[in-house]
Amino acid sequence: MKLIRLGEPGNERPAVLVDADAYVDVSDEVADYDEAFFGWGGLARLADVVASRVASGEVEPLGGQRIGAPIARPHQILCIGLNYSDHAVETGQRVPAEPILFTKSPNTLIGPNDDVRIPRGSTKTDWEVELGIVIGSRTSYLDSIADAAGAIAGYVVVNDVSERAFQTERGGQWSKGKSAETFNPCGPWLVTPDEIDDVGRLRLWLDVNGERRQRGSTEFMIFDPLFLVHYLSQFLVLEPGDLINTGTPPGVGMGMQPPQFLQPGDVIELGVDGLGTQRQRVVGPR
Amino acid sequence: MKLIRLGEPGNERPAVLVDADAYVDVSDEVADYDEAFFGWGGLARLADVVASRVASGEVEPLGGQRIGAPIARPHQILCIGLNYSDHAVETGQRVPAEPILFTKSPNTLIGPNDDVRIPRGSTKTDWEVELGIVIGSRTSYLDSIADAAGAIAGYVVVNDVSERAFQTERGGQWSKGKSAETFNPCGPWLVTPDEIDDVGRLRLWLDVNGERRQRGSTEFMIFDPLFLVHYLSQFLVLEPGDLINTGTPPGVGMGMQPPQFLQPGDVIELGVDGLGTQRQRVVGPR
Repeated sequence: MKLIRLGEPGNERPAVLVDADAYVDVSDEVADYDEAFFGWGGLARLADVVASRVASGEVEPLGGQRIGAPIARPHQILCIGLNYSDHAVETGQRVPAEPILFTKSPNTLIGPNDDVRIPRGSTKTDWEVELGIVIGSRTSYLDSIADAAGAIAGYVVVNDVSERAFQTERGGQWSKGKSAETFNPCGPWLVTPDEIDDVGRLRLWLDVNGERRQRGSTEFMIFDPLFLVHYLSQFLVLEPGDLINTGTPPGVGMGMQPPQFLQPGDVIELGVDGLGTQRQRVVGPR
Repeated sequence: MKLIRLGEPGNERPAVLVDADAYVDVSDEVADYDEAFFGWGGLARLADVVASRVASGEVEPLGGQRIGAPIARPHQILCIGLNYSDHAVETGQRVPAEPILFTKSPNTLIGPNDDVRIPRGSTKTDWEVELGIVIGSRTSYLDSIADAAGAIAGYVVVNDVSERAFQTERGGQWSKGKSAETFNPCGPWLVTPDEIDDVGRLRLWLDVNGERRQRGSTEFMIFDPLFLVHYLSQFLVLEPGDLINTGTPPGVGMGMQPPQFLQPGDVIELGVDGLGTQRQRVVGPR
């Protein structure tokens, strides 16, 4: 299934995409794609609802509706740093021996095509296309890496927008440069694992103003999704609906010669194989 | 006012403490002390409800009821590192030029007297008595430090429990050592600012097994609460009910000679002037 949320910010209705431009509304059955939904087996129930509605023709055209993030604001957004060996190199840092964990404020989550706003005082707002993992059940101390498969509800495209000066020049802990308003475009869809042939072979790409900046493949991840979920579960409790941004491939602005950062008016386009594409306009500070 | 939540974990009822051992139940008026409550002016409405119930004698004895954290699970828990000059010295680190920000998973929040559980694989679980700030309204880009007063719902005691090896020896970003289950005892009360004479002169203390380990005063904070809320609002959006742990005074286990860490069976007692006291039993890993 491809879960999608449609409507204005804060009033999105849950739906399921059933064709390139067609969806089934499930807002009468499901309050939202949130902790309660994932935690109480909502995905399994949803499959039956959708099958019956498709059979009876209750399908609507997507048209020009706004698409929200495919999940409601999560309990937490966890991020993995330097998880592609060639991205680690471009930032001048060592390939990590184990996953580096930092966080983003959950209220950074926005739709895939919403504006990205440069924060006040920013000089180094940067892009990061990533594969995002959405957690499907309360998860702690998984016994094995293989067990992590049962804890994953699906995958999403995310843009882990980052202010590099706030991240690295203002105290050394990265969260300060990761949590500005609009810094986590997500979607367009949450794709359940059964619809993905091999999560270890997905291409990722990102353009700024039509020029290709990032290209990568999840095959070059240092720590893959199952490893990450198992690993994180040893340090904290993952809640249903939690989002994990799994790290970015090479090609971020701070790695360019000379470094290049986002300016008002820029357009970012990005995508991951099978998970859809995003397009954000960059706007100036409030 | 002193806000308190009573009952079993996950089923706490909101109440207001009106005497050392007496409270007014407000669970018929207020769903919980959460984002909606603080964001929609709940504190102001609550004052009227409590006054009328005290007048009509609707007051109940606290007795041996379990006390939960005085706020529901927040949108985010932000933490400030090395915010007492003498604590920075004991950890061997420089006094920071500006606040260091890291985070804890919101689901670490527990009641003030609940058990603290040592995580699996831990050898360095440590204590940190702190003053906590609870945010009262959606807050972004405050114009002045003075304006931060209007954004604060109240203050709480927190124990910012920390696993030092996970925090400092496993990749360098601190959140990994701050987010284990039970790592954020909070309460017993949320005290509104009008009941605190001077938040810049509150003593803090913490004992382990009856021996005084931490003693401090908020007058030795490097960055005071109003400064912190104004500062954080320049980097991210604070939501109503968010919790900010403002840093710990000297006396943590990793600063002792030799370092000393928590063991199953230990008892931690801590408090902050006017904000109440906590008592946690330390238990072994699950």
